[in-house]
Amino acid sequence: MKDLAELMNYRESVRVVDATLRDGGLVNDFFFTDDFVRALYRANLAAGVDYMEVGYRASKTMFNPADFGPWKFSDDEKIRQTIGEPDPALKLSVMADVGRCDYETDIRPKSESPVSLVRVATYLHQMPTAIKMIEDAKSKGYEVSCNIMAISAVQEADLRIALAMLAQSPVDTVYIVDSFGALYPEATERLMAVYRDTVAAAGKGIGMHAHNNQQLAFANTIEAVATGADWLDGTYDGMGRGAGNCPMEHLLGFLRNPKYKLYPVVQFVEKYMEPLRASGITWGPSLAYLLTGIFNQHPRAAIAYTKAGRSDICSFFNEISGQD
Amino acid sequence: MKDLAELMNYRESVRVVDATLRDGGLVNDFFFTDDFVRALYRANLAAGVDYMEVGYRASKTMFNPADFGPWKFSDDEKIRQTIGEPDPALKLSVMADVGRCDYETDIRPKSESPVSLVRVATYLHQMPTAIKMIEDAKSKGYEVSCNIMAISAVQEADLRIALAMLAQSPVDTVYIVDSFGALYPEATERLMAVYRDTVAAAGKGIGMHAHNNQQLAFANTIEAVATGADWLDGTYDGMGRGAGNCPMEHLLGFLRNPKYKLYPVVQFVEKYMEPLRASGITWGPSLAYLLTGIFNQHPRAAIAYTKAGRSDICSFFNEISGQD
Repeated sequence: MKDLAELMNYRESVRVVDATLRDGGLVNDFFFTDDFVRALYRANLAAGVDYMEVGYRASKTMFNPADFGPWKFSDDEKIRQTIGEPDPALKLSVMADVGRCDYETDIRPKSESPVSLVRVATYLHQMPTAIKMIEDAKSKGYEVSCNIMAISAVQEADLRIALAMLAQSPVDTVYIVDSFGALYPEATERLMAVYRDTVAAAGKGIGMHAHNNQQLAFANTIEAVATGADWLDGTYDGMGRGAGNCPMEHLLGFLRNPKYKLYPVVQFVEKYMEPLRASGITWGPSLAYLLTGIFNQHPRAAIAYTKAGRSDICSFFNEISGQD
Repeated sequence: MKDLAELMNYRESVRVVDATLRDGGLVNDFFFTDDFVRALYRANLAAGVDYMEVGYRASKTMFNPADFGPWKFSDDEKIRQTIGEPDPALKLSVMADVGRCDYETDIRPKSESPVSLVRVATYLHQMPTAIKMIEDAKSKGYEVSCNIMAISAVQEADLRIALAMLAQSPVDTVYIVDSFGALYPEATERLMAVYRDTVAAAGKGIGMHAHNNQQLAFANTIEAVATGADWLDGTYDGMGRGAGNCPMEHLLGFLRNPKYKLYPVVQFVEKYMEPLRASGITWGPSLAYLLTGIFNQHPRAAIAYTKAGRSDICSFFNEISGQD
């Protein structure tokens, strides 16, 4: 029987991370208003969410700040100016992509930053650089996670080698990131067994970041927490790239720790997410995203299909099923 | 390890039932055109679907035929006129609701009907009448299932008594019907264990009919098939009451039996379901349906909220959380 299987009790060690600004920012190029960000912080605080990811810490030499909203870069100054000093009950995180972050200079010592957690996002083959970034952030005083993207497309033998490297590293938590939304809950259960054997056995936490191509983001997150994952990502109204993420309102409706409250999430969705959708910003499950999920492909083809306003889904099926 | 857990092989005994006309008919009062019905039959045949439910066999003394499309009643004559004699590869079913079907007269001997399967839909407390209907349909030569509705709101002790009665009856298959969309996959797994102990032990099949309030209809269907359910309901584009059902395109994208084909489903969705949505017919997951699912309530409040075009979801939250 799985842990949490009684569906009634809870594990104190579970942490919920709101990734709305970061993964949702991929949908609107991070153009969230300061009012939105402040209200989101207050909603998360009221809802008992543990961490709020404010965005990426992207390189300003690689990306032109004029092309993006501020949360592509998430400067410490911008965070302080918008949110102020964070409440100890709701810590902040930023995501640092391997190869797209000037981490040596742009991540300053924790003592000078409102950020508590640096999440290093990496593809499996970039692991040596990811570990260098993990060591850098750890030495500067941060909590650090490693978020392994596109996990449904990696070989288990390679994954085990990478996880053994992470087990030796100072990283605190290692995530399953189902970038393609291709995992079924049983595949999540299998991956969890591999993570438990390796990084959890070395004292690291396990995290789950799911995408909703097959409407399985919530189901995979439930499966992960029931089989030992303590770090769970959600976003308000599921906002995130392509088919989006595990919706925060589903997740907090499921978790039984009394500190989690659903109502502030519903309030925020009514007041802030519905207008965002009404303004024309688009995300969430669709037949096109389902197909890239089933075919275990990056959602970029489905994103392009959606942006172009296409509805010839049979042609799309033939296009992507004909790809290698 | 679960059966089907390798996610690669398949079980010959699995049967897929398309419930689009029947559960989807609850959304548009069964006003499907003959062209839609014929094209759906052809799509199911091409997709390898095993059964197509054409609608209810509702009482014409209780419901006025002028108020509904023909698939509320699914007369044998109307079926023959629209579909003709069914192909042996794609059998037809009708649903007969306990207390809303003149089954003695309206269900004729199988030898006179194009229908193969009668599905008796019942609430738990109506089980004696359901068994009378099961015996009637069985004696007339049909395959018969019993679909136990609102399963998330019944006591396990009561359920075991009802399942013991069904084990003694001539019913072929007993369904879990998650009318409220309130089950989590682990709750499905528990129910499956109860069904295996009782009706499966007596040689009956187990079926799963899921609703999508929490975006778990597909996940619960996967869970059910992996733990022994052979009868799986799906609908095109998830069309069904309220939050809708397990989408057929998700289900056939998952099942590995080579006879199942995804492309005809995608074709039908493009050609027939998208125009239906565009015409203003509404179904599918939303925050209102999520809330009735979390609160384990009938979706009727959320249906009314949706029909009224309301967007004051916080007020709705207070309304339904204040109900007994």
